Amino acid sequence: MKKIQQTFAVPFRYEVLFTEGIFEPNNPCFADVIEANPHGQSPKILFVIDEGVVQFHPQLVSNIEHYAAHYSDRFRLVKHIITVPGGEAAKNDPDLVKTILEAVEQERIDRHSYVAAIGGGAVLDLVGFAASVAHRGVRLIRIPTTVLSQNDSGIGVKNGINYFGKKNFLGAFDPPYAVINDAHFLLTLDDRDWRAGIAEAIKVALIKDASFFELLERDAAAVASRSLPPMQEQIFRCAELHAAHIRGGDPFEKGSSRPLDFGHWAAHKLEQMTSFRLRHGEAVAIGIALDVIYSHLDGRISEEDTMRVIRLIDTLGFPLFVPELKAHLNEPGHPYSVLGGLEEFREHLGGVLTIMLLDRIGHGVEVHEMNPDLITRSILHLEELAAGSKNKVPALSRAD
Amino acid sequence: MKKIQQTFAVPFRYEVLFTEGIFEPNNPCFADVIEANPHGQSPKILFVIDEGVVQFHPQLVSNIEHYAAHYSDRFRLVKHIITVPGGEAAKNDPDLVKTILEAVEQERIDRHSYVAAIGGGAVLDLVGFAASVAHRGVRLIRIPTTVLSQNDSGIGVKNGINYFGKKNFLGAFDPPYAVINDAHFLLTLDDRDWRAGIAEAIKVALIKDASFFELLERDAAAVASRSLPPMQEQIFRCAELHAAHIRGGDPFEKGSSRPLDFGHWAAHKLEQMTSFRLRHGEAVAIGIALDVIYSHLDGRISEEDTMRVIRLIDTLGFPLFVPELKAHLNEPGHPYSVLGGLEEFREHLGGVLTIMLLDRIGHGVEVHEMNPDLITRSILHLEELAAGSKNKVPALSRAD
Repeated sequence: MKKIQQTFAVPFRYEVLFTEGIFEPNNPCFADVIEANPHGQSPKILFVIDEGVVQFHPQLVSNIEHYAAHYSDRFRLVKHIITVPGGEAAKNDPDLVKTILEAVEQERIDRHSYVAAIGGGAVLDLVGFAASVAHRGVRLIRIPTTVLSQNDSGIGVKNGINYFGKKNFLGAFDPPYAVINDAHFLLTLDDRDWRAGIAEAIKVALIKDASFFELLERDAAAVASRSLPPMQEQIFRCAELHAAHIRGGDPFEKGSSRPLDFGHWAAHKLEQMTSFRLRHGEAVAIGIALDVIYSHLDGRISEEDTMRVIRLIDTLGFPLFVPELKAHLNEPGHPYSVLGGLEEFREHLGGVLTIMLLDRIGHGVEVHEMNPDLITRSILHLEELAAGSKNKVPALSRAD
Repeated sequence: MKKIQQTFAVPFRYEVLFTEGIFEPNNPCFADVIEANPHGQSPKILFVIDEGVVQFHPQLVSNIEHYAAHYSDRFRLVKHIITVPGGEAAKNDPDLVKTILEAVEQERIDRHSYVAAIGGGAVLDLVGFAASVAHRGVRLIRIPTTVLSQNDSGIGVKNGINYFGKKNFLGAFDPPYAVINDAHFLLTLDDRDWRAGIAEAIKVALIKDASFFELLERDAAAVASRSLPPMQEQIFRCAELHAAHIRGGDPFEKGSSRPLDFGHWAAHKLEQMTSFRLRHGEAVAIGIALDVIYSHLDGRISEEDTMRVIRLIDTLGFPLFVPELKAHLNEPGHPYSVLGGLEEFREHLGGVLTIMLLDRIGHGVEVHEMNPDLITRSILHLEELAAGSKNKVPALSRAD
């Protein structure tokens, strides 16, 4: 039999830039990421902005217009500036994809033009998906405005929307053209969003970097009281670890391993079970707490380290427990049992179930099954811990 | 300003296999491409089949079912087998994407399951797009059934559907998991589809390989009278050249250069202007003829070589001209003027207009503009050539 063996590698390259005051005219950061066009007009940019961001930054659109006027030799703003709802709503309405595609078509955005997305992770996911499929991919500049998107999702290679009620059922692996993190956007976040993003920093510290975990512990109280400099430091270190992981691993996730999804099997299910009353980072914090306790009960991480994790999450102000976690645990296959999240997680990854547990702080280990009884016991422990005060956390013991 | 420089390369690897009788139980080719799953059940496969293929191969579905039963330890057929309209209709109805996605969801096709697409290039493009965006990409096995898809589109890295009336407005760069070319499918093609695919072989020969062009000339009469062995040889050599081009170049087309789109700027526009009465390969043949004559009038390829190209296209039975080619040439910007195809081509590529012309047979050269008057003269020449008989082609001269 004749055959042709096709093998090649596609190179990707982008910068994650950290700035303050991205649309102040004396800040060239944004204009500098636009590739100069030696052959003709300066390239077009279509902006898509999270409504929540516009609400807290009512001058944003006019700032962008002034900025564009100042740098008119570098890029051209198209007529439409689109705003879309923020949060999970952005990912639940496929018509929003169509709205963005219509603007791409009407404004003649091509593969050498740009779409700039300003917003939280959900908006970046939505806009990224539209940008990925229009003309097989137009250039995307992500301007993440939340802690979670600045330290994690906004710097990665994934996008997606929800479909058939399933999280990220539609999406693509498609690296951005550039990412610009502006710390000023963080100042107007509500406390829940400020906090939520730290869950991904805790996660990446736990599986990869004990010294980063110590930094998170050291600064937890300051961050909880909204101090910006330690938050900026955490975001940079988390983003570095995240970027290095993508670079060193399997960027388009062709295998079954997904180390960065530590704590996420339960988190995804809890988001769905709470109809997104829990924000992603809040669900991840609970998912981490659950999988750390499970790791302990499974004979891995020590009780002392387990309690350090629980205390950090608690100090930052995260809820440790929601009633949904305990629902229908004795009914295998019930759609509102968190245990169903394991199979859904396996299905989304495809292939073999692969779950990250902890051996110690800073070191994850992959397993291919979890014991439902031990999960149930972990949930009951977590409920007990959550019921205690911050200063009087009940003891954890493998014996009970 | 702090920054993170992200750089990585994503490796892709797939085989293009050539076989005959893909679903005969004694042919292990198809079963052998499925990755063994050491951890559990054999992987699932969802088939999506071109209705036109089913019409000419009424036993196909039951052959697949028997084949699957024979190799039940290697893969599992899911309950749904989807059929979709063939030809451009497949790409004009976004609801077909949804139909495929629904089956992916209902049958729990995951990133380690397979979608197998059987059909012509349009069906492969449609199914490929759905497979690319479901779960950020499920594994796609392409089984191209036409000359055009076996030697060109089916072995490449692109998919797409039409949207807002624009060809391939939605799509992705996403290499397949495997491609299997079964020569038996070619036997039931009508003469137009049999012929149409050769246009891409002529194209790739003209820009890359003079010896391949000579082979095409040598076998033109035999191929025109439906001899299979020379067609198989042409398909293999064209596929090899195409695969090598992707491997050696810019697979995801981040630049503006698109050498394999020789002859395509006019072809895309003609397909649209004729409401797809012209098949893609037929439009490409006319587009090639036009750009070869233009290359000659522009002082590049010799008259002798120009006429060799015209004679080859003519011998194979392609039309050299359609009335739409001549319409509205004096009305710049008219939507039904082929000249508008240049700007639409630039827009789809993005960036700078880049057109391939010919210096000689086997050697293309890129230019960044075309002269509308010279295009018009080339069209009038082509009309004259088409009007002559095959044995009495009017002379071509730069003087007139």
